[in-house]
This record gives sequence, C-alpha cells and structure tokens, in this order.
Amino acid sequence: MKVLLTNDDGILAPGLTALHASLSREHDVFVVAPESEQSAVGHSITLADPIRVKIFRKNGMRGYAISGTPADCVKIAVTELMEEPPELVVSGINQGGNVGINILYSGTVSAATEAAIAGLPSIAVSLNTYAEPDFAVAADFALHLTGILPEIGLPAGVSLNVNVPPLPRERIKGVVWAHQCQAPFEETFSRRQDPRGNTYYWRGGERPPGDLDERSDAALLSRGFITLTPIRPDLTDHEELARLGSHNIAI
Amino acid sequence: MKVLLTNDDGILAPGLTALHASLSREHDVFVVAPESEQSAVGHSITLADPIRVKIFRKNGMRGYAISGTPADCVKIAVTELMEEPPELVVSGINQGGNVGINILYSGTVSAATEAAIAGLPSIAVSLNTYAEPDFAVAADFALHLTGILPEIGLPAGVSLNVNVPPLPRERIKGVVWAHQCQAPFEETFSRRQDPRGNTYYWRGGERPPGDLDERSDAALLSRGFITLTPIRPDLTDHEELARLGSHNIAI
Repeated sequence: MKVLLTNDDGILAPGLTALHASLSREHDVFVVAPESEQSAVGHSITLADPIRVKIFRKNGMRGYAISGTPADCVKIAVTELMEEPPELVVSGINQGGNVGINILYSGTVSAATEAAIAGLPSIAVSLNTYAEPDFAVAADFALHLTGILPEIGLPAGVSLNVNVPPLPRERIKGVVWAHQCQAPFEETFSRRQDPRGNTYYWRGGERPPGDLDERSDAALLSRGFITLTPIRPDLTDHEELARLGSHNIAI
Repeated sequence: MKVLLTNDDGILAPGLTALHASLSREHDVFVVAPESEQSAVGHSITLADPIRVKIFRKNGMRGYAISGTPADCVKIAVTELMEEPPELVVSGINQGGNVGINILYSGTVSAATEAAIAGLPSIAVSLNTYAEPDFAVAADFALHLTGILPEIGLPAGVSLNVNVPPLPRERIKGVVWAHQCQAPFEETFSRRQDPRGNTYYWRGGERPPGDLDERSDAALLSRGFITLTPIRPDLTDHEELARLGSHNIAI
C-alpha cells in the first residue's frame, strides 16, 4: 500500500524511524512529519503562520519536514505534497501512551482523526513508556495490523487508536478492543519564581490511582494488553441529544 | 453563580468583554483567559514551556491573563487560581462559528470540554461571523441559558456547544438541538515564495457547498437557528466497538 507516515514527536524521533523501517518491509512509505516536537498540541492547526516545507532525505526515509502540527502534516500531504492520496495514514510510534482523556491532547491521535475526516483509513500507534523505549514490538504489530485492516473493515471516518505496553512480545497478554477511559487526571501546577522574581508554573498531573473501568483502554493497557480503540471525530453526546431534542428553549 | 469565564481569542477580545458584561448582571464572574489569541489550538496543553500568570484588571474585569491555551486556563484556574471551584465554566464569545469538524480545532470548545473532564458544567458560545460582530444577542442568550441550565439538566461530563447566527434577535428562527456535522472541509494551500526564495504555504479551506445533513449544527446555524449541541470528551466509536469487540486479533 501507499502509506503516509507522520507523528507528533518530530521527523527525527526514533519511534518514527522504527515504524518507517517496519512498514517499508511491505509498503511504499512517504513521510510528512513535523520538523520539531509537537507533543500535546491536540488537534491544532496552523492558521496565523505560514507553513514551511523542507524536503527530507535521511535515515533511509524520503518525504517532507513541516513547520506545523500533525494535523497540518496530513492536510498538506494529502492536498499538496503527494501525487496521489495515500491508501493508509499511520501516525507514531508515539513515545508515551495515548489512552483516556489524553487522546484529546494527543497530536499523534489527531493526525489519525484528521485522516479520518479526509475519508482515509488511519492508525495511531503509541508505546506506553517514556524510559528508554524499545519500539520493535510496537513497530512489528503495526505492520501486522496493516495486513489485517481489510478484514477488520473499519468504515470511512473511523480511525484505530493503538496502544502497546512496553513489554517483550512473550509477556504481552493479548490484543483487546477497548473504549476511551473517561477518568480525569489529577492536575498539579508547580509554582516557581524566575531569576527576575516573576512567578511561573510547570504543569503536571497524572491519573490518580484507583479503580478504572476495567474495559477501558487505560485499564487494559496497564494490565499488559495491546489495546485497539475505534475512534471517530464526533464529540456529540448522542444519548443526551436524543433526550434533549424535544426540550424547547425560547430565545 | 460563581462563573469562570475564558476564551481562545485572548483576554482583550471584544467577545469576552461582551460576555463578561452580560454574565455579570447575574453572576460572580472570574476571568482566566489567554493573554494572546489562541484560535485553532484545539485541545492543546502546555507541557514543555512554563506557564506565566498575570493579574488582569481592565474593562471592569478581574482575573488573570495566561501564557497558554484555553485548556491550560481552565486547568490552572480550577487547580491554582480560584479559591473554590466555579459552579459553571463559560468559554467565548468566539468570533466565528464552531460547528462541524471545526469543533475539534476550536480552542473555545476545548475549554468547555476541559471543564467537563473536571466534572464542571460548561458552555462554549460562538458567533458565526468574522465581519464586524455584534455580540449583544449572543451575550444575552448566554445569560439566559445560564438561568435554565438546571432545567436542561446536563449530566457531569457533558458540555453545551452553542452557536449563534449573526442576526438581529427578531430574525433568529429559534433555538434547536443539533449534532456535530461530519462533512469534511475542502482543504486549500496557497503556495508562495518569501523574499529569500523559500517556499511557504498559507492554509485555507472551507466547507464545500452541497447538501449537509439537515439536522446538523452547520446546516441549522446557516439557516438562522441558534444551535445547541451536547458534547462529551469521548472519541470512542461505540457502535464500531460493539461490532469489533468479538473480533480476535493475534499479536
């Protein structure tokens, strides 16, 4: 297949290189990725600034480095840079899991949902570790997944969000379907003073320990499963909409 | 009520000032908003940079200007800056509608979904125009809505995305419940050369003319209705998940 590969950790990130190497064994891979790290940009797009595009030939890859976000990369690749649209868009491998509400903050996932908006099949792949990541298992699994996508048969407009635990293959418990965990993070802000006496904050925050919905991506990933979540760029709460649809409001 | 007011056009934006004026007629309003424009930042958060906080007293408002995104504003307001959590978070009034897939790119809406994640009731308000906006009708309607929220009874975790057409009150056709339009944009990139001979692009794009789902926010807003959409920070495609849940995948 003709695959567009992108990420949010930037075009030089080892997770992208590993995914490029595995996908290239069976696919024609074209890279359009941010020139610098874009983590936690969410689904942002560049409106007020010009977007710069640099030809990239390095690490056996060919493509473009973009002065923009992952969503920008997908838009400009499909609209301007690729001669024909890709048959599949793959984003990753992100260093760090993208489960639960983190999905909303994730540039990696937003590249996949951007592809879904454009009607293209897409996969976002994340490895749930920050410490000395070994991307081999996740990269191999991503390649495996590209082969069985037709059998899975995702409809247009739906992406697959894939999270892989940082374990050797034989210790991974299996592959499971899961929904996005809804548990909030416990936010923390560390207050400091700069050398000029001005106050600033560093943002922290983590999911508080406690019972997670056991069918959720966060719970299953932490137990050692690879999780697959079909996601759709629709925030509508359809249940609430059905309930409220008959509720008349005057202006 | 104790109301936290934020936006993505920045703390000096006239849409924020108008909403502050209307809400203050009945509520205790505390402003925590970005110090500069943050349009199209989507649900991004600031991780790699420190967040700076400046006391803001101007235009009859009190609160803080933040060097960050709308989602940052809600997080730091609730965690650090407010003595007690707000009873309601209101974001806007955005200059420009936030319907359809734009919801994913919208900083205005992401502030409301961030509040929903924190378990707080929230409303995002947008006025569907870029040209010489008159915020009066939208600001009055937002105040009206705060009064009937208990009657609407949104569950925790659900926000209300409100879009107002740029019409005099008597020409607005009514208030309707609508789902997020799923029609994609037609992307355009305008290619140029800078004075040093380097190529750059300006991003464009608009919803192509054509049939929209007539129950969608985009269709109803363009016909002159105020649209209300309950939204939830969950991208899971639950229908697909139910279908795929029994599909076994080997590692």
